This record gives sequence, C-alpha cells and structure tokens, in this order.
Amino acid sequence: MASDLNPLIWPASATRNGQGEIAIGEVSVSDLAKQYGTPLYVFDEADVRKRARDYVVAFTSSDIETSVHYAGKAFITTKVAQWVNQEGLGIDVASVGELEVALRAGLNPSQIVMHGNNKSVQDLERAVEVGVGRIVIDSLIEIERLNAVAASAGIVQQVLLRLTVGVEAHTHEAISTAHEDQKFGLSTASGMAMAAVDNVLECNALSLAGLHSHIGSQIFDATGFELATHRVVDFAVQIKERHGISVSELDVGGGMGIAYVEGDDPLDVNAMAKSILDIVRTECARVNISVPKISVEPGRAIIGNPGITLYEVGTVKPVELDSGITRHYISVDGGMSDNIRTALYDAEYTAVIANRLSDAKKVLSRVVGKHCESGDIVVRDIELPADTRPGDLIAVAATGAYCRSMASNYNHIPRPAAVSVAAGSSQVLLRRETVEDLLAYDAGVN
Amino acid sequence: MASDLNPLIWPASATRNGQGEIAIGEVSVSDLAKQYGTPLYVFDEADVRKRARDYVVAFTSSDIETSVHYAGKAFITTKVAQWVNQEGLGIDVASVGELEVALRAGLNPSQIVMHGNNKSVQDLERAVEVGVGRIVIDSLIEIERLNAVAASAGIVQQVLLRLTVGVEAHTHEAISTAHEDQKFGLSTASGMAMAAVDNVLECNALSLAGLHSHIGSQIFDATGFELATHRVVDFAVQIKERHGISVSELDVGGGMGIAYVEGDDPLDVNAMAKSILDIVRTECARVNISVPKISVEPGRAIIGNPGITLYEVGTVKPVELDSGITRHYISVDGGMSDNIRTALYDAEYTAVIANRLSDAKKVLSRVVGKHCESGDIVVRDIELPADTRPGDLIAVAATGAYCRSMASNYNHIPRPAAVSVAAGSSQVLLRRETVEDLLAYDAGVN
Repeated sequence: MASDLNPLIWPASATRNGQGEIAIGEVSVSDLAKQYGTPLYVFDEADVRKRARDYVVAFTSSDIETSVHYAGKAFITTKVAQWVNQEGLGIDVASVGELEVALRAGLNPSQIVMHGNNKSVQDLERAVEVGVGRIVIDSLIEIERLNAVAASAGIVQQVLLRLTVGVEAHTHEAISTAHEDQKFGLSTASGMAMAAVDNVLECNALSLAGLHSHIGSQIFDATGFELATHRVVDFAVQIKERHGISVSELDVGGGMGIAYVEGDDPLDVNAMAKSILDIVRTECARVNISVPKISVEPGRAIIGNPGITLYEVGTVKPVELDSGITRHYISVDGGMSDNIRTALYDAEYTAVIANRLSDAKKVLSRVVGKHCESGDIVVRDIELPADTRPGDLIAVAATGAYCRSMASNYNHIPRPAAVSVAAGSSQVLLRRETVEDLLAYDAGVN
Repeated sequence: MASDLNPLIWPASATRNGQGEIAIGEVSVSDLAKQYGTPLYVFDEADVRKRARDYVVAFTSSDIETSVHYAGKAFITTKVAQWVNQEGLGIDVASVGELEVALRAGLNPSQIVMHGNNKSVQDLERAVEVGVGRIVIDSLIEIERLNAVAASAGIVQQVLLRLTVGVEAHTHEAISTAHEDQKFGLSTASGMAMAAVDNVLECNALSLAGLHSHIGSQIFDATGFELATHRVVDFAVQIKERHGISVSELDVGGGMGIAYVEGDDPLDVNAMAKSILDIVRTECARVNISVPKISVEPGRAIIGNPGITLYEVGTVKPVELDSGITRHYISVDGGMSDNIRTALYDAEYTAVIANRLSDAKKVLSRVVGKHCESGDIVVRDIELPADTRPGDLIAVAATGAYCRSMASNYNHIPRPAAVSVAAGSSQVLLRRETVEDLLAYDAGVN
C-alpha cells in the first residue's frame, strides 16, 4: 500500500492494511479505538525495544566502556522500563516517583541514575536506601545534604557532578558562552565545579564516580558535543593536576533529536555514537588522559517515534481567513491536556486520517482539541483531506515522548490510556483516567 | 507592618504578622506548610466570596437584567462552586468533569452553562439529562447533534450561539478583523452564524435563548467589548429582520484582566460593569432594539488573586551571567507541574519570602522548579533578598487561576493540595496527590 507514513517519523510497524486503515503492531486503529476508546496513546513495543537495542549496539565499542540509560522523564511505565532494561539499558530518573516505577519494573538499583536540581532530603534518602547506582549532584548544597544522608545510611554513594561548560545545543546550532544562564549544573568557568570536586573529595560518604554534561534537546548534529567534550576534558585535566585523580566516567547526557515532521533529518544512532566516541577519543588524546567510561541518556530518541496518539474527530469547521484562504479546524476529543508541546514549545507534528485512505483534495487544516482555550492546538498547520469528517480517527505521529508524561487534567478532562501493541495483540500500559478519579481528590462540601 | 504585599495582587487578607511572617485568613504560612506540606495552593475564602459578590453587585442594574456565571475552568472544586453560588453566581462548565463538580456542589442545574467547541454526544446527553440551563452551541454540526439528544430526552434545550465577530482583545489592545482564525464560534461575517440561527429555529428540541461573544483573556479596557458589542447588536438586528424575533440574552463572556505584577492596572469591577452595560445600552439604542439580558463569565477575575502558591526553597545557586551580573537561581519544591503558565504564556508573577522579613540587599533572582527541564521556571525575573536560603517559604501571588487546573504530573511529581483559609482556620479543597496515586494508573508488569 502506498505509504503516507514516513518511516523516519512513524512507528516502525505502522502500515496501512488492505482497507487503507492504519495498523500498528498488526493491530488496526479501529480495533484499538473500539477496545480502549479515544484519545489513546499507542506504543509499538518492538520499535521501542529495537531503538533501545540499537543504542546499546551503536555505543558498544572495542576500546571504550559504555553504558546507555533510558531517560524516564520522556515516558515511563513499569512495562516500558522493563522493555528497555531487557534490551540492556539502565534508567535515569528525575524524581522518587520515576524511581519507584523503575524499581517496580524490577531494575537492579545499581542501573539507576538519579537526576534533579532540587532533590529533597526525602528524595535522597529513598535513593540511598534502595541503592541507586549514581546520584548526579547539581549544587554545592546537595553535596553536604547527600553526604549526611549516605553517612547516616552507612554507605558510600557514587556520585556524578553535573557540569555546565557554556555550551547549549539547539537543534542545528550550538551556542558557546562562558556561562550558562540556567538552573542546572556547576559552572566550570566560575570555579563552582572545582569547588564541588574539592568538597566531594572531602566527604567520607561520597565517591566521585565521574562527570556529567548535558547540553540540550532535539540536537541534530555533534558540534555541541564536540565543544562540550573539549571543555569537560580540560576540566578533567584540571582535576588530575589538582587532586591527582583521573575521571573514570563521563556521562554526556541525552538530547539526540528525532524527526517529528517531513524535513527533520536527525543523525542515525550509529553516526551519532561514532561521532561522540570519536570526539571523546580525540579530546582525551589531545590532553593525554585515558578515555573514561562513556554514558548516554536517550529518552525521546527511544520512545518518541514509536508512540502515536489516536483521536476521534468531533467537528470540522471551515474558517475563512482574511487572506481569503479557508482553514479547516478539525476538533478532536483530546488536546492540550494530552499534548501540551504544541502550545508550550511551538512543536510541530504531523497527522493523518488513520481509519481510511481519502483521495479528496488536501486543504489547509489545523487539528485542535476540545479545551476551553483558543491556544488548544495539536497540529498547527497541516494539509488534510477536505472530506475529513466527524467519526474519523486521526493519528498524530511521534507523540511518545513528553506527551503523556506532561499531561494535565485541564477542564477536568481525564487523561487517555496508553497501550502497547505487538504481533497482533495489545496491552494496557497506563489505564484511562476517569472523572471519578479526578473527583476523588475533591474534599467535598461540608 | 510595612507591606510588600500589593493589595491589587495579593489576597485581601494577606498580611505580615509581628514576626514578619505572612498570614492569610489569619493563618500563618508556616502553620499551613507544617500542616499540609509544600507546595501548597492557598485560597482566601472571604476574598473569593467578596470578589464574586462584587461582580453581582456591579452588574446589578435598574434597567437591565443581568446574570454572572463563574468560569469553572479557572479553578473549580465543590467548595469553590458552593461559595460562588452562595454569593449569587451560576457556573460555566467546559466539560462533563466540571459539570459533575458543579452538581456535587449542589447547584441548581438551571444555573449552569455548558461550553465547548467539541462536546461529545455523551457530554450533551449528560448536560441535557441533568437539565443544564444553557448549552452554548459552537458549530453547525452541534445543532443537529444536540437537537437529536434533546428530542430523545423529550425536552426543549435552551441554547446560546457562540459568535465570532472579528474582535480579539489582548490585554491593552483589541484587534479587529473580518474573520477570526480560531477554533471557537460561528462567524457572523461568513454567514455561518446566520445559518446556525436558521438551523436552530428549525429544530423542535432547541430554543434560541441568545447569543454569546467572548473576545479574549486578561483584558484591561473595554474597547474590545465596544467593538464586539457593536457587531453583535448588528447581528441581532439581522436576526430580527430575517426572522422577526428579538435576541433576549447576550452573554459577553469573560476575560477581564487581573494584576499579576506591579504596574498591571485592571479596571475595577464597577468600572468594567458600567462600561459594559453602557456600551450595550448605547448600541441597542443605536439600532433601536430592546436591551437583552446580559450575562458575564468571570473566572480569573474572581479566583486569580485570592490564590497563592507556597513553596519551600531547596537550593540557591548564584550563576554569573556573561554580562557580569549574578543571578540567583532559587529552586523550589514544585515548578512547571503546578504552574505551567510561566513556560506556556511567558506569564509574569511576583513572589516574596513568606516566612520572614529580610533586610538583605535584593538581588536579581529566578524562581525555578525541581523538574528535569531548563524551561521549568516559576518566576522569570524578580528581585529577592540575597539571603534567601533553603528552608525559606516562598509565596507566589495570583496563582489561583489556571495553575492547579492545568497542573500535570511531569516527572511523576504529585500535584499539591489546595486549601482555603478563613478567620483563623483552614480546610482542604483538594487533597495532595501521592506517588501511589500515580502508580495506580500503571498496569504493572506481567
């Protein structure tokens, strides 16, 4: 079947069947809508697993020890955590909530890394208690806080120091400054990072496992990594000169870009891995230090494209614009509560009619939600068939990352279920919320 | 006590006690933090009630019938719904979820208005079944849908038609165009609005109660209302000429602006009401039609300022900027999950240390959250005392509207409790969410 489903954007198994209907994991969208209702997040399990595995393979190197951690903030459920773990990945968590999901999935806590610019003492206590492998320290105050927690638990906690090195990567460009104006990290330029090294080395209950440097999101080339690695390696040399110790691990963070719409052209994982490892080799050779273990933290790059959102169309309204052009406002049964990224980041998405093929002329359209807000837009600009009509299913691509994880209950709209599909069957990852669930928080009238 | 709490911005009862600590409704913030934890939404009940009552009084007119509906989307719980109803307001709902809250609060369904650009058949069935007073029709397709639902229930449903008249008001300016490029409403210019009138009049189970026109958000003057009313009244004349019927109700929507930061200078409710009623009188006189009943829908204007968010500071990090200036990043124990407005709309807020007065020099600061995202900002630019430190309570003003209602669980962070205070005591409106609540949606591993 002629495909309107660009494989760079859509789940690997997404295809149109003989009736022109999309199937994912060999399950048709109308079957999914019938069984689970809409809106619905649908994840292609095999595709998630493959992307996870591909990361591990791409970063496997004969001369450098590597590890890959899945960034749970993108989207995490116990099953997703289990899948990526079975494929050889550890998990990054950014809160106790995400930590509990990873633990319930059965991860060995040593494979878990905990992030966060403002972990509470309770967060740290829980992480230490369960034996999280690495805690990424983000501020000077956290050093004494964590040292006290670890000492009180009678353990020595392995820590990474999150550096800011003045490099920010955005999609196709990297910005290099002396200082980074952001909440995360310890600045190498200001001396705060070296003060952190000094302090950690004085803490009996902490062990400096390595350095962490995350430079951005949706990155499409390795220029930023090169700049950042250059500075991180220089900092490692300073540590060696000052304290006589070698940095044994370097976590380069995540941020690898994915394709959301036609024209997005991310590096494939092998090219990305080769670039990063080559950069590290070259930089370490430049200053004559041994190459540390390299960790990476893909989130969106694993879960983004295997996930789609299925909506049902409720209304179609042609609106004549002042330019004389007509725009079709296609209202679906979800919106900014299940995908805030369009409103929040001006994110672009693509969408198709999922339950049928149409040979109607394509017209300028906007896919909007059912919320009481004019900014409630799912896909801002898209050409969709002029005969798109109530009852049609619309699939929006690449909604696996940062959609369900950032979902709200705006207008008391319950959040959709998330299901996975594989080899002709489906299963629930997260059950659908109900109005009753929301009302359960209400203390009621007296 | 010298007040740093501008009464245009902060809850009416907010004051600093002898120890320099903020109390609201005569309850100190440290008592609230101790009893309920942080982050915490705190609402001044008397202030909510007073603003609701003030609206009713301001819109009470000797020659025009009026009604005021609280826009529940801003923030609704059963107690809040009960308060505003006791003060004489009906309630606008934008979903079945909001409808159920209003019903549980004991509202007479005839006082409820239902909005929404894409109400499902189930939404309409529920609204009709319980006897909602007005349903605001937003598209042509909804007319047949609702007529079928009402006919099947054996009732005649009162409806308003939501018009778009080419006027958009944003804060200090109104934009006037022929057509509005938005999902809501029926365009008067395109003929869609008159087609809707024709269709409604042909439906046996629908009765045209009136017209609705909402022109924007955070509006600071009445210019937009004037333009919009001019066009709505012209449309009413067209209806009269075409069908020989008079429009008996005009709902002018909401959107009245409030003060978030110093310098914001909204019209007070009396001036706003006088403007709106004068405009309606003048416009109706211009075309010689009788003045219809006027409805207004304040949400933010009632609940915005009486609500604050209390956070505890976790870390303070000085970051040197390239300009040489130092910015204090003050990390609190919430963030974009409990207030997305800063990231979503570049909304401005003000904040103070709430548990004490400080005479330390004020320094450039940014209040940020604990989420794993650099855009996780609560207050972008603010001068706060240089000695702001971990353990301090930070109060952010005017978070009553569109904060809890748009809250997410990003990073699996549970949503804060919402409490109200009055005359020295406090009560829960919405209980605090827990990690267990979030895990309850997870289907688990097999």
